[in-house]
Order: sequence, then C-alpha cells, then structure tokens
Amino acid sequence: MEAPPIRLRIDLAYDGTPFHGFARQPRYETVQGSLEAALERLLGQAVPTTCAGRTDRGVHALAQVVHLDVDPSVPRASRVLGSLHDLRNRLDALVGEAMTIWSIRQVPTDFDARFSATERRYRYAISDVPAIDPRDRYRYWHVRDALNIGTMRTGARVLVGEHDFASFCRRSQERHRMRRLDAITVARTSKGVVDVRLRGPAFCHQQVRSIVGSLVLVGRGERPPEWMAQVLAARDRSAAGPVAPAHGLTLEGVGYGRRFPAAPLRVG
Amino acid sequence: MEAPPIRLRIDLAYDGTPFHGFARQPRYETVQGSLEAALERLLGQAVPTTCAGRTDRGVHALAQVVHLDVDPSVPRASRVLGSLHDLRNRLDALVGEAMTIWSIRQVPTDFDARFSATERRYRYAISDVPAIDPRDRYRYWHVRDALNIGTMRTGARVLVGEHDFASFCRRSQERHRMRRLDAITVARTSKGVVDVRLRGPAFCHQQVRSIVGSLVLVGRGERPPEWMAQVLAARDRSAAGPVAPAHGLTLEGVGYGRRFPAAPLRVG
Repeated sequence: MEAPPIRLRIDLAYDGTPFHGFARQPRYETVQGSLEAALERLLGQAVPTTCAGRTDRGVHALAQVVHLDVDPSVPRASRVLGSLHDLRNRLDALVGEAMTIWSIRQVPTDFDARFSATERRYRYAISDVPAIDPRDRYRYWHVRDALNIGTMRTGARVLVGEHDFASFCRRSQERHRMRRLDAITVARTSKGVVDVRLRGPAFCHQQVRSIVGSLVLVGRGERPPEWMAQVLAARDRSAAGPVAPAHGLTLEGVGYGRRFPAAPLRVG
Repeated sequence: MEAPPIRLRIDLAYDGTPFHGFARQPRYETVQGSLEAALERLLGQAVPTTCAGRTDRGVHALAQVVHLDVDPSVPRASRVLGSLHDLRNRLDALVGEAMTIWSIRQVPTDFDARFSATERRYRYAISDVPAIDPRDRYRYWHVRDALNIGTMRTGARVLVGEHDFASFCRRSQERHRMRRLDAITVARTSKGVVDVRLRGPAFCHQQVRSIVGSLVLVGRGERPPEWMAQVLAARDRSAAGPVAPAHGLTLEGVGYGRRFPAAPLRVG
C-alpha cells in the first residue's frame, strides 16, 4: 500500500529584482523554478508548487504562500520530514539570499495555497521627493512630482466594493472582471513615502499596478479625483492611466480564514 | 590671462553594492570612476575629485562629499556652470540609479572635502532576527543570534575619547593610530534592527567595521563587556574580533563646521 502524500505549506519572502517573476520558465531564473529545484534536491522527488498569488517580474513578496505534496515513501523525503524546522533551515540556505523561507508546516490535504485563500493584501510604495536614497530604487516607484494624497484618497474611494474591474485588468479572453475590493488606503509614512495598500479576496492581473498608475495621475493633478469613477465605469483598459512599474509592488499578506491560521511572519 | 578655477562641492549618496568601492580603479566600476567620467562628459575636461571619506567595496554612503576644480574657460564648462541646478539634474541622470546627486554648489577655493571636514558620522546596521526581508540583505549584517544591546553599550563606552585605536585599524606602515571618538551609540530601532552609530573627526581604515565586529562578540555573550577595554589597550590588531562585513556600513554625514554649512540632504 502506498503512503498518502504529505501536504506542506511554505511561507516565504523574496526580492523580485533578480527573478524573472514567480512562475517557472525554461531558461530564466524564477522564484518558483529556484524554489522547486531546491525542494527537489532536499526531498529526492519532483515537487510542483502552487502559490497564493503569482507575481510579475520585479514584484516583491513579503508573505507569499505555496503548497506542495511530498511522497513520504521516498527515502530522502522520509528522513527530511522528521524535522520541518531543519528542513526550513536547509531550504532557506539553498534558495539563496534573494529569498527567505519563513516557515514550513504540514497542513491538511484540502489546504490549497491558491484556492483556500480568502484575502490578499498588497502594498504599493511611491517616493515623490526629487531625489531618493539609491538603495531604495528597487522598492519605491520614484515619481519626482509631489503627490496630493488627499485627492488620491478621494479618487480611490469609488473603487471599494464589488465591481467589474475590466478597466484596471490586463486584456484577456475573459469578458468579465468582477472583483471585490475590501479596502484601499493612501497614506504618507514617516519616511515621506506614499503607501497605497489594497485588500480583497482576489485581484486580476496587473490590477493593483493599474489602479496605482491611475491614482498617480490624480495625485499629480493631471486628472480630477472623479475621473477614477469614469475609468471604472468605462470597463475598458484604454480608459485607465499607465500601469505603475513592478518594483513598487509587494505582496504583503495572504489570509486563509479561521480554518488555516497565519504563519508567524518571522521564524522563531 | 587665465580664468581662476571654480571649486564645486557635490553632496551625493550611493548604494555600495554594485561598485568596487569609492576609489578609482583601472578595470572596475567604482563610485569615483563613474562620477569623474560623467563630470568629464558634462564639463569637457578631466576633473579629479577629492572625497570626505573613502569607502570600501560594498559600503554605502547617504551623505558623501566631494570637491573638484573646473576651468571655466573651457567652452562646454562655461555653458554648464550657468545653472548648477541643471548641472545637478544632468549629472544625476548620467551617473545611473545606484548613485544620487543631492546637490552641487560653488564653494570657496579653500574648501577641501577631505581636509576641511571636522566630523564624520557612520551608521552600522545589524539585523539579529532568525530570518530577514530579503530586500534588506545588502544593508544589514544578518547575525541570526539575538544581541544584548545592554552589554554592547557598556562595552562601547570605553572607546569614547582620544585613544590609540591600533587594535581596530587595518595594519599599515603608520605606527600610531590616535583618533578621537566623540560618540558611539547602540540602539534597537522600531524595525528590530540594531543600529551602531559613531561620530568623530576622523576614522582609520576599517575602524568602524572592526569596532562593530568586536561589539557583536560582546552582544552574543562570547566576550564580556570589559573585554573591549583590553582590546583597546592591546594596540594590536589581532586582539580585536573579526571585521564586520562591508554591507552593514553607511557613511551618513560629514560636518565642516560653521564656515561651510551642510547641504540639504534632499534636493528641493
């Protein structure tokens, strides 16, 4: 009789800069490719992974979640599964410094990193000072003109709720882009950075970057706040502003509701 | 009659990661090499630069200062010198994103970025949590064991004042390493980072990194705080702990006293 597979949940972070996005690709270094190669080495078997939210090239994650199934009858796997804490340490060492493995836990086999997720949280960071600390160049979109966060807030408000977000989604075969946005906040941090935070059950491709790109036109005074409602109502990608660059965006959290509680962000 | 040279002061920042240190080198990309190449292109003449504090490979600067002399009789220079604000913008664009030019100002010809400096301020940042945000890997020394900042503070106190810092200086021909350390503080920031800040008129090569490397042994409990006094008294490089890695160190400020006031850190 074959042993049933063991499902593992990995909570991880990565700097999107050196990767060609999350999704595995034949000739490029990607987050998924690097992660799966390291896992295969440690577990003695190919382990396809599923993630909570695919990220584009240059996008960062502070709290990405993936799941995978391990066949415990493979000798190398059976040895390694004895201590998931040790496995975390070995995996963290193997994936390189651009990725951090926060934790590895066994989860019920009906946990699905993608489909069990009930909430995704994104942060988009913009620096609007004339010149920035060069070390921040891969984490802030540097816009140079001072932004009015008051008008950005007003413009963002209309997006909350359930809408057809076609204007803010990358064109595709799908005709409808119904999504629920639970919250969007615009705030200036103590470091003078403009933070746009979004929370909702699911986002379509480039939705956050497209919303931010349009909000920046409002913050610069190139569009009035009411324009955001027009863009939303148009249900047409060409109505929105340009897509904000990838490097300002970070996947900051994924929620799974009460059945699957959050992992600690920093390992203990 | 030849026109007298015009002395310029440039305040700049850089991410030390992609450079092979500050000082010009034949076959490597360095801060000075990149800066001088861009200046030569804009000013139509070779312009050797002098800096306030040379930084080693991997060390960052948030507030480095350099000076240079420009012959205004060179046609291209005479055109460009009309607006130092425009020159700043063009230089900032030319040096690439790993460097930021905060400001360019004309200064009296007796201003010397190196010899007029009366104070240098350094920050060394350490993260002592088990796992870090991978985007911070080039700005914090990640030590993994929790540090006791109380014992580090006690250990650091003995270094304040004028001493022969030979134990903390890179071996060289010079026999004496008298330096004055005006302040050294150890603090934990809200982000859980241990910040060691040092202030003094001048530092010898690797002095800050060597002091921090020794303080970390104290913070880990591998040495008692009193050991710092023994190291200082030994006046022997081999008495100290290992040199802390370059990437945790940032030159954060240079002071020139009342005659030469500080430039605004961020351009207006």
